Order: sequence, then C-alpha cells, then structure tokens
Amino acid sequence: EQGPSLEQLDQRIKILERQLENQKEEADAKAKDAATVAAGSNGFSIKSAKGDYEFKFRGLLQADGRFFLSDGPAASVRSNDGFLLRRVEPTFELTLGKQLFFRIQPNFAPDSATVSDVYGELRLDPAAVIRAGKFKVPVVLENLQASGATAFNERGFPNELGPNRDYGVQLGGALFGGTTSYALGIFNGASDGRDGAQQAKTAGDNRKEFAGRVFSEPFKNEPGLLQGLGFGVGGTYGTRERGTVGISDLAYRTPGQNTFFSYVSSGSVFTQSHGYEYRVSPQAYYYRNSFGLVAEYIENAQQVITNTGSKADTLHHKAYQGVANYFLTGEDASYGGLTKPKNPLGKDGYGAFELVARYGVLDIDDKTFPTFASATASASKASTWAAGLNWYPVNNLKIDLAYSLTRFDGGAAGTPSTVVVDRQDEKLVYSRFQIWF
Amino acid sequence: EQGPSLEQLDQRIKILERQLENQKEEADAKAKDAATVAAGSNGFSIKSAKGDYEFKFRGLLQADGRFFLSDGPAASVRSNDGFLLRRVEPTFELTLGKQLFFRIQPNFAPDSATVSDVYGELRLDPAAVIRAGKFKVPVVLENLQASGATAFNERGFPNELGPNRDYGVQLGGALFGGTTSYALGIFNGASDGRDGAQQAKTAGDNRKEFAGRVFSEPFKNEPGLLQGLGFGVGGTYGTRERGTVGISDLAYRTPGQNTFFSYVSSGSVFTQSHGYEYRVSPQAYYYRNSFGLVAEYIENAQQVITNTGSKADTLHHKAYQGVANYFLTGEDASYGGLTKPKNPLGKDGYGAFELVARYGVLDIDDKTFPTFASATASASKASTWAAGLNWYPVNNLKIDLAYSLTRFDGGAAGTPSTVVVDRQDEKLVYSRFQIWF
Amino acid sequence: EQGPSLEQLDQRIKILERQLENQKEEADAKAKDAATVAAGSNGFSIKSAKGDYEFKFRGLLQADGRFFLSDGPAASVRSNDGFLLRRVEPTFELTLGKQLFFRIQPNFAPDSATVSDVYGELRLDPAAVIRAGKFKVPVVLENLQASGATAFNERGFPNELGPNRDYGVQLGGALFGGTTSYALGIFNGASDGRDGAQQAKTAGDNRKEFAGRVFSEPFKNEPGLLQGLGFGVGGTYGTRERGTVGISDLAYRTPGQNTFFSYVSSGSVFTQSHGYEYRVSPQAYYYRNSFGLVAEYIENAQQVITNTGSKADTLHHKAYQGVANYFLTGEDASYGGLTKPKNPLGKDGYGAFELVARYGVLDIDDKTFPTFASATASASKASTWAAGLNWYPVNNLKIDLAYSLTRFDGGAAGTPSTVVVDRQDEKLVYSRFQIWF
Repeated sequence: EQGPSLEQLDQRIKILERQLENQKEEADAKAKDAATVAAGSNGFSIKSAKGDYEFKFRGLLQADGRFFLSDGPAASVRSNDGFLLRRVEPTFELTLGKQLFFRIQPNFAPDSATVSDVYGELRLDPAAVIRAGKFKVPVVLENLQASGATAFNERGFPNELGPNRDYGVQLGGALFGGTTSYALGIFNGASDGRDGAQQAKTAGDNRKEFAGRVFSEPFKNEPGLLQGLGFGVGGTYGTRERGTVGISDLAYRTPGQNTFFSYVSSGSVFTQSHGYEYRVSPQAYYYRNSFGLVAEYIENAQQVITNTGSKADTLHHKAYQGVANYFLTGEDASYGGLTKPKNPLGKDGYGAFELVARYGVLDIDDKTFPTFASATASASKASTWAAGLNWYPVNNLKIDLAYSLTRFDGGAAGTPSTVVVDRQDEKLVYSRFQIWF
Repeated sequence: EQGPSLEQLDQRIKILERQLENQKEEADAKAKDAATVAAGSNGFSIKSAKGDYEFKFRGLLQADGRFFLSDGPAASVRSNDGFLLRRVEPTFELTLGKQLFFRIQPNFAPDSATVSDVYGELRLDPAAVIRAGKFKVPVVLENLQASGATAFNERGFPNELGPNRDYGVQLGGALFGGTTSYALGIFNGASDGRDGAQQAKTAGDNRKEFAGRVFSEPFKNEPGLLQGLGFGVGGTYGTRERGTVGISDLAYRTPGQNTFFSYVSSGSVFTQSHGYEYRVSPQAYYYRNSFGLVAEYIENAQQVITNTGSKADTLHHKAYQGVANYFLTGEDASYGGLTKPKNPLGKDGYGAFELVARYGVLDIDDKTFPTFASATASASKASTWAAGLNWYPVNNLKIDLAYSLTRFDGGAAGTPSTVVVDRQDEKLVYSRFQIWF
Repeated sequence: EQGPSLEQLDQRIKILERQLENQKEEADAKAKDAATVAAGSNGFSIKSAKGDYEFKFRGLLQADGRFFLSDGPAASVRSNDGFLLRRVEPTFELTLGKQLFFRIQPNFAPDSATVSDVYGELRLDPAAVIRAGKFKVPVVLENLQASGATAFNERGFPNELGPNRDYGVQLGGALFGGTTSYALGIFNGASDGRDGAQQAKTAGDNRKEFAGRVFSEPFKNEPGLLQGLGFGVGGTYGTRERGTVGISDLAYRTPGQNTFFSYVSSGSVFTQSHGYEYRVSPQAYYYRNSFGLVAEYIENAQQVITNTGSKADTLHHKAYQGVANYFLTGEDASYGGLTKPKNPLGKDGYGAFELVARYGVLDIDDKTFPTFASATASASKASTWAAGLNWYPVNNLKIDLAYSLTRFDGGAAGTPSTVVVDRQDEKLVYSRFQIWF
C-alpha cells in the first residue's frame, strides 16, 4: 500500500509525455528561427533560418614570383626579378532577401587598395537579373573566368584587346533550362585590357559603350562526349569624341606585363582616338574528364586620327589563343577551377598535379605603322608559347610554376636607329602561391 | 508474474524524469554560454551569450549615374555623363564589453580606399561617451544624417560651409530622458565641406578647431502633432596661422559636384587664410506620418588676407536649405531613412514610392570680390531647385531619379573677358542604385 | 478495470525511453556537425565542428595625438600638433584545414589603405612552416612585437636600421619542445626602417635579400627566475646593383617621426648604394611578474659610392635600446602585451596602470660625413629618453601618455651656415587611444 498506484504512475507518464512533446516542439521552433553558420573549404557563412539572408566570406591570395631569363637593356622593360602580391581579395557576398544580392570584392594588391567587383543585383527572375556597379564587361571568355581558376598566372592576348571591369548597368540571365546565358549592358567604356574609369571630369566625354554576350552549353544536361562543350560570342560597340579619351591608355602587354605596343601619344604629330570602337569575340571551351580547352578569338576595330587631322583610319587588331589543361591525378577539369585535390598531401597522397599549355598571338593592323605607332618602339605582332605545372597539395591551395616564351615582329631599333629589328624575346619563369576559398 | 512490477515501472519513470530534467538543464546551460548569430535586413551579427560582445557587419552600395542636360564648354566643369561608385562601405561595428564600442567603416569609392568613420567609444554613461578617431564633426544636420538616408543623392549647400569628418576627440551623450543630445569636441580642423587632414608635416600649423552641437526633441515621448519635431544648433570655432592652411582647399560645389566658388590661390596677389574661422548652424526637422522636412541655416565667418598683407577682411558666407519628403505608399518618414517598404515588389505590391523636393541657396559675402576671389571665375550666389522620386522595390534597396537646376549670380566671363556674366545653369539628372543594410 | 494496465504503462515507458534516447543521439549528431561561433575579448570567430576550418576577425585602432613642446623653425620638421589615425587594422585570420593558414591584415591608416600583413602558410610540421606573401622580416625584436603590445607608441632606434615588412618566402618553425623558434627567408629587400617594395619596373634590379633569425627561451617550461628570459640573433644579407636602389629611401627618424639623417641624394655629387648591405641584431627580453625588459642592438653595414665613383666606403651604423615596463596594478608583463586588466573600471576597480621607460641611441658611422651626408643637415648621433604611463581602463582598451626627449650631435647649420651645430632637441608629448582585440 506504500508503493505507487497505477494511477499515479499513469499520471507521471502523462507528464513526461507532455514534457517530451513540448521539448521537441520548442527545439523545432528554435531551429526554425535560428540563423546558422558554416565553415569549410567553400568559405564561411552566416545564414538566416529561412535561408533568404546570407553573409558569405571568401578570399583569394596570389603571392607571385617572377624571374626573367632575358634581362632587357631598357628601363621601360620590366626584366627585374621579384616577389609581389598579385591579388589580395577578401570578398563579402550578401544575399538580402529572395531578390537582392550584393558583392563587395576589394583588392589590396599590388600596392594600394581598390575594388575589383562591387555590384548589386535585383533578381526579378532567373532570366532577368539587373546588375549595377563595377564588374566584368561580358565579352572575353578567359577574362570572365575567375582569376583563381585560370590555367596560367596571367591571362592571354585576347584579354588585351577586350575590356576588363567597368562601371555600368547590365541585364542578364539564364535561358532554355539554364543551358544558355546572356548579358546586355551599358558602360562608361573601358580601354583595351584595362578597367573602365569612373565618370571623369572631362568636358564633352559623354561616350558610352554597349556590350553583350551570349554563351551556350546545349548538351549540358546530356551525359556524353559533348556535355562539356560551350560556345558563344561577345562584343562591344562604343563611340567617343575625338581626343577625349587618352590614346595613351591603349597599350598591349606581354605575359611578363611589359608593354610591347602603344600609339604615338606625344610629339608634334600624335595619335588621337575618335569615332567608334567595336570588338567581336567568338569563343568556346570544352571539358571532358581531366582534360580542358579554352579557345577564343577577338577582333578589335578602332578609329584613330592624327592630331593634325591629316591622316585617319580604322585599325583592326586581332588576337587568339588556345589554353589546355590536364590533371595527371584524375581530377575533373572545369571552367570553375579546382579547390579540392582527390588525395591531399598526407599519409597516402601528394595532392593534385595539373599540366597546362598555351599558344597565343596578338596581331596589330599593318596600317598602324608608321603613322599611328612607331615601328622601332612597338612590335607589330607578338606570339607566346607557355607551359606549366600546377600543384594542389591540399584543399584551397595551389602552387604553380610556368615558363613563357614571347617572340615579336619588330618593335626595336637597330643600327642606325631608324632600322626596325625584332624586339628581344621575353623569357619568363613565373611562380605563384595561391590560397582560394 | 513475468510482467513488470509497479516498483520497477516507478523506478524507470524516476530515471526518465531525472534524464529529462538533466537534459533541460544542460540545454539551458548551453544556451546561456553559446554565442548566437543573426542574419536579416538589419545586417549580420555574432553575439556572445550575455550580449556584451558583438560583431556586426553592415554595408552600403551607391552606384550612381549622372547625366547633364547642359554641357559646359570649359574642361573645369564636370558636364560629362557617366556611371560611378559613390560609396562602397562595408562596415564593422564591434561591441567589446559593456563600455567599449569600435566602428570601422572603410570606403572603397570612388577610385581608391580610405576610411569614412573609424572611431572608438568609451561609454562611461549614456550622458558621457568619449569618442576618439575620425568621425563626423557635430555641426550640420543633413551632414549628420546617414548617407543612405538622405532624400537626395548629394547633400545641400549648408553642407558646403560646414565641416565633414575630422580627426579628434569628443565628449557627447543623451540628456533629459533621451530627448536631448549634445556633443563637444576638439579636432584638427576641416576645410569647408571636406574631411579634415591628419597631422600634417607643416611647421607652425598648431591650430585646433572646437566644435559643439546640441539637439532636442522635447516631445519625443508624447504622441501628438509635435512628437516628430527636433531642433538645435551646431557650431565650430578655430584659429589658424597665416598662410599655413591652403586657401585652395576652400571651394564650394554644386549638386553636380562642380566647383563654382574658390579663392584666388595663385598669381602675384593671392588670398591666404589667417586668424579665426567660426560657423553657426541653427537647424530643425519635423516628421509626421509619411511627411518629413529638414530645414537648416549656416553662417560661416572666415578671416582672409592677401599674401602682400595689403588687404584683410572677415568674410561671412551663408547657406540655407529646406528638404521635404513624402511617402506616397504610406510608410513613416524619419531622419533614419527607410529600409523596408510596406508592400515589397511581388504578388501584391510594387514597393514604396517617395517624393522628394529641395530648395537651397549659398550666398558668398560681397566683400569677397574682386580682391579675394575673381568675379568672372567664381559665382557670388548659387540657388538650387530639385525634385525626385525614390523607389524602394524590396527591403534594403533604393532606386532613385532626380532633377536639379542650379542658377548662379556671376561666375563667368563675357565679352570682353573682364565683363562679369552669370555662369551657365547646371541642369542635372541623377540616378542611384543603393543597397543599404 | 478502466485504469491503465501494467503492460500498457510499460509500453508507454518504453516509448518514452526510446524517444529520449533518440533525442539525445540527434542532439549529439547535430552538435558534432554544427559549426560554432564565439564572441569575446579575443575576437569573433566561426569554426567548423571539427575545428579544422576557422574564420577569425580581429581588430586594432590606434588614434593618436602628438604635441611638440619644441616647435622647429624648418618646414621639414614635423613640429605641428595634431590628431591622427596611426593604425586601423581589421584582420581576418583563416584556418583552412589542418595545414593551411591565411592572414589578411589591411591597414586603413594614415590616409589611404594598403596591407600590413598578407600571407599564407603551409604548415607541414610545427618545425617546418612555409610562409609566402608580405610579412615582417625576421630580424628586429621590437619590430616583431605586435604593434598593439609595444610599450611606447613608436618603436625605437634599432627598428630604423632593420627592415620592416617585405615580399618573399620564408621557412620557419619551433624546435626543441617549442623553446626555440627559427626563420629563414628570401625577400625583395626592404630599405632600413621601411617596408619592401613589390617587384619594381627597374632594369637590372635583380637583388634579393636573405634574412634569418633564431630566438630561444631555454627555461620557458621551468618555473623560476629565468623562466621569462629569451634571447637570440637576427640578421640580413643582400646585394644590390649600383644606383638601382634609391639611396633617398634610406633615412632615419626620431620618435616624432622627423627625419634626422639622410644621404646626399641630389646635386652634382651625390650618394649611391652599391655592393652589399648586411645587418646583425643580438637581442633579448626578460619578463618576471609585473616587470618586463626588451634590450637589443643592431649593426647595419652598407656600401655606398659617390655618383662620380671618386669615393666609396662601407659604412657601419649602430643602434641599441632598452625598454622597460612595470604594472603598478599587479598584472603580468609579457611580450604579447595586455588586453585584460585585473580590476576593470567599475564598482571596485580603476583598470590597470603600467609605467614604461626607454633609452636608445642611433649612431651614424663617422666616415659618412661630409662625403655621403651633409653634417649641417644630418645628425651624426641621436639619443632618446622617454617615459610614459599606460592605462587599461577596461578589456581591449589602452589610453596612454608619454614624454620623449631626443638630443642630437650635429645636424644643423650655425652662423655662418657652414658651421655645424647640434640640431634642436625634439620634445614630444604623445598620447594614444587604442582598441585591440
């Protein structure tokens, strides 16, 4: 009679059942409301419970070494060896509700801080995304590839004839079940191979540049030989007032970042831009298993005139390149690059190894010489062969080493100094320590 | 006899009760110690369990377009159209214990990175907060409003005669139940409309500037017609050695960011600052339901002298403005700005719409001409009318469009070039894509 | 007969037992996978469940005031009083798996943004860490101390003769149970007291600088009188092409950041660097309870030549200093600095108080004058006495005030102007508001 009765036990069990139920409901409610965090090889994030607000932190470090096997005689040629920070980009990606996205990517390299990408996106629909700010102009294929993902440390010649980042507004999106992407924008107008400038304090410079690109991977969702094939075309069209845009900004560089072509921009007779500039760039890539290939061509037409107005012409410069990569260790090649080796450095593995190769040409319009550019100072053609080995010892790290040989047609003075000779070959060994997440 | 006994069941229930109790206690203890995160339209944060340590990330993007309907002839006039980044401000707000606060607000726009706000606060008491670093000098009402919250893209004329941010130390706080705020500080001394400079390498420049402001909302806590009324006065007083501070930094700008007034700063006879400068700015705002009004006046007195010492004077420049805003869609107007529309773009809504209007005048002291400034180069008066429409389609996004017309008295040369005529009107259309959280 | 049966109760208890078990397992599984966050006086972090990925945010603010009691006559002497931001360093420390570490430390002070530290580390072993990027060259003891932890606002004279940060690659680690650390690196070569430059566009400048340091705390793990003793030696060796490196970058500064020595760098006969430069710096510290002492010496040998080649020499400059600190309030002194006072400002405490004192000398090689430097412009010797009081009112905050007196041998012109007299003493009061976490 002193032990518990059945009824008492029943009562206590009921209480326990209710408590357990409450506890479960509370935990579920909490989990539904609580923001969550993540930390891993894809970056670090804080996310609202519903997932519609997200803070994401990413980063890129490129610490390079450059060693020239061919020391040039002229101070205008960068032939000294040295270490440098190529890119230091802590990046904030912010999702603010279901339709708003905000990307802030400062760059603290080489010696001062500025912004690489800074833009907002109003995502009305997957097929209609409005983007405003500073971002890559949609033209050149290798330019649009993330700088952490390119096969070599520096991009190839087509990049020199296309625009880089610019200030403007763009409408873009994905069509046909995501197999095709398009972008159409209006920008301030970027000089070849360079970033555009902000609204400048220059009377009369009201020019704008229109840019567009369409790219398709028609077999993206069909496993097979052609699944990794993508192709498209990008281009720009812009006009400019005569003399308003510095022709001195138009200069083309080697893989060692030496300028080998520029217009005559001083003296009694010099070159001015005027009229229009357009660019057209057909492009393709192909990825299958461990193999990848990027191939692209660009034609750049620009109207120039001498300051005296005595001579004017439309010059057609051209560039093309092929870049191939192959993973010796079996990883899948992709346009997006690699961050995780199959067998990281440790007990059993040595990381991933990738072979890369490039051939590229930049051909200046023959009509450029001698009126608009000096044949003894600017080469009329440059061609590059390069090969390298990329090592990914652990997640998020790439250490690479490459050799590049660039040959020129003209661009240097012989004896007497009016005789045009070929500029000295650029022989460059470059290396990189890259962290990317 | 093979089934469980009452005593056995009682025992098992006791164990369950104990386990449930333990589990609850553990969960509570964990929750008490665990730092938490939040993600939403107010930003992203990591907070200690007690709430005394907090990391908060906020951001501001202002991607602008400027289009001038009146192209000026002179290269000194910014009349070209273009896109630009006006502000790119990722912001870290750090609470470190109950008394310490630290704000880091870099600005990556327009073309290089610097800091907007960087300061620490030792919060001894709500009425006694010591602030040190670089921050806004407490004077001009619209200047102190967050740049994401102002009615128009650019602030008005009173801002041109007041200081912007400066380096120094300030004591401030809230009094009378939070209805009144005050601030008193000592700074390096900022040029009109500009940021102050860091300690400069200039012999003899030991000047300091004192600044103070008091602002009251006496009916803040009493619902009614006057609840949204605030008024106050700010001012500065500083002295400077003759010639030590560049008179060339004193220049006043239009809404299109064109300079319409500056002193003679070169040639055989030019202007130098010396003696004192003071500023006084009475100010008020009024908010009721969807309507808001900011009204302010500033008088700026500065002593100038010619380099030869032959002429000296104290010049009194004045500016005032009224800025009104009204939400067509019923949102509450406030000094703090809007981040959430009532009915965001989607099934039922089109976001919030706000009408804004401004009238402002900047009047240069007549004694300035012709000794200290050139009447054919600098206008003696500028007045602006502006109206605009701001659209808040979703949380944290504002897209705006405004028109501004600025007229001048003098400031240009006629025929012959010694005749003073009115500078050409500035007709400006400006637009902004703003993300703010 | 209508009440529950024993079997029914048994069944319900079994269900409860199973549910409780499941709930516990689920919670454990969740905790094992969930990333966690932390917020406190050591900073803010997001960490993966296993702890191998971590995002850590730290910060440093140094808002200084400098007041000279001795206003110099020359514009080249910084004798004006003023406020400034000395360092603004939001810092991201990223651990990416067990072997990869990435540090991004921008500096937004004084007037523009650049990077202090940016480097990646591949941690093969505690004794073998490869570091690449931009970071402090391992030489001078006080230079390697965190800038938030030094006793005075500015580092002493040995720092002027050593390198600061540079671009390069280093192998380092801990040996002998962590009692000894070593570092060996190759760098671009930093000018004395300055950061190194990125790969420059200068023909022929292929020089590199090798740096190394070993430091030991042999009694680190043995409590007693000698536990806090550490000593070691650092040094560099580099060569340079004649004339390729600007001799104008070699200039030595006072605690008030005024240059008191520089080479003749213009005119018909001026000084060029050539040949080699080496530095050797024996160093030690000692910490016991509230007392700390840093003592260091550096000899810097550099080869110089006149531009005409008529005179050449190897100059040996020397510097040494002792810096002592003592906590009046009983906190432990350490090389790592203090962030938490024992009794913070509040009911019972007034924070921590620390006394600091320094004596230092920089002695220029007598052979320098008059060929390579002007005796009436550059002092041949500078010696500094300084004393100060540091207050740590609450966690993460330091407010300090110090006085420094620097005397010179030579360095100024008398009457006539060819007579060498002693440069005017520098009497400096400096103060700092520092937030550090």
